[in-house]
Amino acid sequence: MSSIPLKHFKKGTPKPELPEDGILRFYSMRFCPYSQRVRLVLEAKKIPHHKIYIDLSEKPEWYTDFSPLGKVPAIQLPGLKGQPALVESLVIAEYLDDQYPGEGPLFPKDPLQKAQDRILIERLAPAVSAVYPVLFTKNPSPDALTNFENALEVFEVEITKRGTPYFAGQKIGIVDYMIWPWFERFPALKYTLPEKYELDSKRFKNLLKWRDLVAQDESVKKTELDAQIHAKFMRTRHANEPNYDVAFEPL
Amino acid sequence: MSSIPLKHFKKGTPKPELPEDGILRFYSMRFCPYSQRVRLVLEAKKIPHHKIYIDLSEKPEWYTDFSPLGKVPAIQLPGLKGQPALVESLVIAEYLDDQYPGEGPLFPKDPLQKAQDRILIERLAPAVSAVYPVLFTKNPSPDALTNFENALEVFEVEITKRGTPYFAGQKIGIVDYMIWPWFERFPALKYTLPEKYELDSKRFKNLLKWRDLVAQDESVKKTELDAQIHAKFMRTRHANEPNYDVAFEPL
Repeated sequence: MSSIPLKHFKKGTPKPELPEDGILRFYSMRFCPYSQRVRLVLEAKKIPHHKIYIDLSEKPEWYTDFSPLGKVPAIQLPGLKGQPALVESLVIAEYLDDQYPGEGPLFPKDPLQKAQDRILIERLAPAVSAVYPVLFTKNPSPDALTNFENALEVFEVEITKRGTPYFAGQKIGIVDYMIWPWFERFPALKYTLPEKYELDSKRFKNLLKWRDLVAQDESVKKTELDAQIHAKFMRTRHANEPNYDVAFEPL
Repeated sequence: MSSIPLKHFKKGTPKPELPEDGILRFYSMRFCPYSQRVRLVLEAKKIPHHKIYIDLSEKPEWYTDFSPLGKVPAIQLPGLKGQPALVESLVIAEYLDDQYPGEGPLFPKDPLQKAQDRILIERLAPAVSAVYPVLFTKNPSPDALTNFENALEVFEVEITKRGTPYFAGQKIGIVDYMIWPWFERFPALKYTLPEKYELDSKRFKNLLKWRDLVAQDESVKKTELDAQIHAKFMRTRHANEPNYDVAFEPL
């Protein structure tokens, strides 16, 4: 879709030259799970877009024009008056869902179901905070792993209670896409932790079934990176020299 | 509307006996700004509700039935199947706005405007983090005040840019209500800080004009507490003995 080079833009690099084609511009970092949320919605709704990758350690000077706090993801809407930019993965996801019909809405139309799904997505936050010390430190404490698993249990309980293959029901939907990016990253732990860590197949039985199912989704496949690539990136972070461009290197 | 006693329920206190009248139940703490957000929506949309206050230092054992993480605000919907409970102030606000027509919607109907308003509400977070050390420590550092004012400047810039009396336009709307609770608390600083602190009337000219205007709103008046009451509560927190019930005492 675009001739923008496959690399992360850094401090000192000029703005990419983009065609004035009115097509949505998507600013992200290739390993950022919040950015992947937006990319999943873009793919699921087949929304044309240009991808621009941002180096988060050394952000290009021009990036705050699109995201005042320098955060990814951001989208810019060059087809609209003033070429507005939006930030915050969930805000962008809902905007795209409202604005582009695609093959149907990803958010539930019922206000109560929608509120409950938004609360469930927010409840991933403790698991995310708990998994960071596991993913991004070289030798995480056993406590860190226990905290992570306890926080994740909410999702095993919820998918079991809902009794459907996806959190959204019989078809994949917003909760599935908004939590997926972290589940794509967990298998990298078997490469980065000494004991080839895996989620307990009994304790997380239904959640792991869900994971295998979601991994087959077309939009998920389009955005996925191999667990070994994730592990390779994590190692560059462990060494305090994050290399975002390993995403584009062969395994 | 309700005969529930005007006090915060504590550990060891039994569940309040509520009539089976199907009326929405609103769980909050009287000084909690996030709870006030929900209360403002309840008032603005004239939604009948019972108020139940929760002591956040010593939460009653039964409270996790309504809010799994023990947080306020929460609402419970006894009129619906399963009597579902919802948490997270913004999620509740949007649910109430979708579900109760009232005198018109508080959230913008245009998806772009709605996304931009949600982003602006999220941008209050840095000001909130920055103001906590000022509000709730006895002798805040001058740096803390500077950080707070810098974070607040986003709102002076934005109201000036929008050029309307309210963030929502000619009429009060969701951004106004969602950020108001913190602006109600700032004037308490003149009672808790040694130098009778006030926001700079030149630097925050339009924001202060907005504050005076919002203070006249009927729903705001119904939910407000006097700056001296806020200061009284802050002093109980400074002493590490938060007394939530000072909200119901005379000045």
